[in-house]
Amino acid sequence: MNIAAPLSPQLLTELSAIVGESRIKTDDLSLQTWGCDYTKHFDPKPAVIVFPTSTAQVQQIVQLANTHQLAITPSGGRTGLSAGAVAANGEIVISLDKMNQVLDFFPADRMVRIQAGMVTEQLQHYAEEQGLYYPVDFASAGSSQMGGNIATNAGGIKVIKYGMTRNWVLGLTVVTGKGDILRINKGMIKNATGYALQHLFIGGEGTLGIVTEAEIKLDRQPQDLQVMVLGVPNFDAVMPILHAFQSKIDLTAFEFFGEVAMQKVLDHGHVQRPFDTECPFYVLLEFEAPYEPIMDKAMEIFEHCMEEEWVLDGVLSQSLDQVESLWRLREDISESIAPFTPYKNDISVLVTHVPAFIKDIDAIVQENYPDFEVCWFGHIGDGNLHLNILKPQDLSKDEFFAKCQVVNQHVFDTVQKYDGSISAEHGVGMTKKPYLSYTRSAEEIEYMKALKQVFDPNTVMNPGKLFDL
Amino acid sequence: MNIAAPLSPQLLTELSAIVGESRIKTDDLSLQTWGCDYTKHFDPKPAVIVFPTSTAQVQQIVQLANTHQLAITPSGGRTGLSAGAVAANGEIVISLDKMNQVLDFFPADRMVRIQAGMVTEQLQHYAEEQGLYYPVDFASAGSSQMGGNIATNAGGIKVIKYGMTRNWVLGLTVVTGKGDILRINKGMIKNATGYALQHLFIGGEGTLGIVTEAEIKLDRQPQDLQVMVLGVPNFDAVMPILHAFQSKIDLTAFEFFGEVAMQKVLDHGHVQRPFDTECPFYVLLEFEAPYEPIMDKAMEIFEHCMEEEWVLDGVLSQSLDQVESLWRLREDISESIAPFTPYKNDISVLVTHVPAFIKDIDAIVQENYPDFEVCWFGHIGDGNLHLNILKPQDLSKDEFFAKCQVVNQHVFDTVQKYDGSISAEHGVGMTKKPYLSYTRSAEEIEYMKALKQVFDPNTVMNPGKLFDL
Repeated sequence: MNIAAPLSPQLLTELSAIVGESRIKTDDLSLQTWGCDYTKHFDPKPAVIVFPTSTAQVQQIVQLANTHQLAITPSGGRTGLSAGAVAANGEIVISLDKMNQVLDFFPADRMVRIQAGMVTEQLQHYAEEQGLYYPVDFASAGSSQMGGNIATNAGGIKVIKYGMTRNWVLGLTVVTGKGDILRINKGMIKNATGYALQHLFIGGEGTLGIVTEAEIKLDRQPQDLQVMVLGVPNFDAVMPILHAFQSKIDLTAFEFFGEVAMQKVLDHGHVQRPFDTECPFYVLLEFEAPYEPIMDKAMEIFEHCMEEEWVLDGVLSQSLDQVESLWRLREDISESIAPFTPYKNDISVLVTHVPAFIKDIDAIVQENYPDFEVCWFGHIGDGNLHLNILKPQDLSKDEFFAKCQVVNQHVFDTVQKYDGSISAEHGVGMTKKPYLSYTRSAEEIEYMKALKQVFDPNTVMNPGKLFDL
Repeated sequence: MNIAAPLSPQLLTELSAIVGESRIKTDDLSLQTWGCDYTKHFDPKPAVIVFPTSTAQVQQIVQLANTHQLAITPSGGRTGLSAGAVAANGEIVISLDKMNQVLDFFPADRMVRIQAGMVTEQLQHYAEEQGLYYPVDFASAGSSQMGGNIATNAGGIKVIKYGMTRNWVLGLTVVTGKGDILRINKGMIKNATGYALQHLFIGGEGTLGIVTEAEIKLDRQPQDLQVMVLGVPNFDAVMPILHAFQSKIDLTAFEFFGEVAMQKVLDHGHVQRPFDTECPFYVLLEFEAPYEPIMDKAMEIFEHCMEEEWVLDGVLSQSLDQVESLWRLREDISESIAPFTPYKNDISVLVTHVPAFIKDIDAIVQENYPDFEVCWFGHIGDGNLHLNILKPQDLSKDEFFAKCQVVNQHVFDTVQKYDGSISAEHGVGMTKKPYLSYTRSAEEIEYMKALKQVFDPNTVMNPGKLFDL
């Protein structure tokens, strides 16, 4: 077991000697700030926050933790939704805030080498300045850091074309729990020399080591993006619309949300309803249209969807500004529902199973939450649904969460029935830890624990996350 | 250590009880045939070949091997080039030949579930029948099996657009060295529930377990593929051509070969020189051109390259037949040089480093092989070069290989100098095992050995490949 706060003055002095006195914080506000992420289920209680500026410093901190059996919580932009970066037990929080530089750029490879504390949006802008594009994008891109994106294999709104963060990582520098520095794969596209260790750290939630640097692939910029928002009469129409478009056009996004989500975004006040017809559900789809015939195809498919009565109404972006404002209908949902203390589920199944799965989940929700507002949205083109239950004003937070957790059981039973995932892109952290076995088998969990042992034999690295040993 | 051939009659009876008497072979010809791959450095000496028909049978064989400390060599299409599937020490060869069926197809997911013994080309045809496309392709697609492709993370000729085999694997069923059946990731695009175990088995060269089934993503079919073959005056012109095209057009392939390779292919007799001008080097590039303006762009870039004198001559495909015959100029190289007992290097560096790297390698080759024919080709758009040294007729095979191995040292020193890979896509197996440390650090190799221990504690699974324990 690892010790609890506070750290001895001796250890603080040693940490100070590693990173410098100005790069250590122990005041209450700092402990609160850097000790938690977007989740509010656990009270932050770290012992100290340290801000190293190099991989070598991170290694020294990890070595110190091994010597003294201390626990470390790696910390990025703290936008996580599963308490993977919450330090609730006297941990040393290693914040990557001061490691946010571009280290090198390789135009011929369309590749950039960065420090892991770089903010997602900062990377997106850097890519743009080079005439290139970093395609992994989501609502918290303005705060999330690349190291955190890598540790959770972040997904978001463009996965249908570009895949997850994993697809864009060509190399990693990590400090393992044991304190070794590994420079893995060094940016190569092709390297068939044994186990692809980088893929354990990607999505490893900082339990095997800390990512300090990364080689990230960039893409060409998308050309002439067009957005359509379509009003849909019911769940059943959503998948036929996806298939109709996807069979003829390369989509860059296919998102889904319900009228409850639309209402909350409109109430939030920054955007307007895209068309007059109020519909139970909406889809937002995006595609590149650098050539005229693509636009013609899109309009043809739209008309076909109207004839089939899969679509009640729709709008097509007429300008770049409108592309952005249509996207806000989808992207502002999280922020708009935040004041309602949403209980978030982030579940996925095969696209094939989505229609039956949604029906089952809907029945559970109707039965168990007859009085709660339920806000559906999600990356439906990837089989990923965000099911958000909103807290009624008159219910206490504790009562509300308790009730949600009872219903979780039914939701996750259904996920398991369809061989799905209890966490599509938010990770496991502490909030999904009790439910891991709904998606991973007992044998898989045993192997995962054995891998943890290999990279972090003294359990210094983000203990209490993912599984208990 | 594992025992050598032959197996006791008792063990043969037990194997027979698992797979059935007709699914076991011990005759000399079979041992020779299934005991080796495309490499000819090692004499095959397996104890027995077994042909299971289900994952459960594979598990029983692996359990038997654990009980009696026997060695297993997993065997697919046996087209490997690093002796990863050679059984030279009395191993039980588990051939997946009888597990080659499609198990399920999910059109909405564009995904197919297959048994691992399915031949690559068979999957490509199946995809085509569904109006879809399996994009990982290479010269041995007619024999290689998907399980082997996964175990070596096969690359090939379309990596620049589609990536390696890894990108197309959405789920795996494996039998670990320990004898557990794991069904990993079950076809999901998004699943953030702990370590991505599938990525250890992909490229793991059968040293951690045997892949028995896989969920494979398919893509839409490419539209109106066009091929250009360009004659190039020198190495230095190759990368500017790549950049000129890549900045304006999405390439699906960018391949490179020298006049020696061209000569051997022409001598082989199935195709003709694409244009009269004999050039030191050639590039073959491919792209989709479903819209007229793409063709115009391509012609513009071609003219620019002629003006810059990066290109001496060129040809553009005028029909689907010509697409195929132009591709044969590149795809027939391996077969055409096979009679010359080539010593194969498969090396890669960042695209950025290719020009300097080629100069260094060329100098080594000039100095060390002044009398040998050197055949250059490769997937230059991915930084991957195949450097083939051809055996002079008057030199014995042993003398030739001995000489090549001396020069290897210099080649791999140069790979290391550029942070490159000693095996870009052929894997390590036995032939590259002595050189692993040129690409992977001592710490990485230690972690790899520890991972091997986790999945295969009794070292039954493909021992002697990748590294020695």
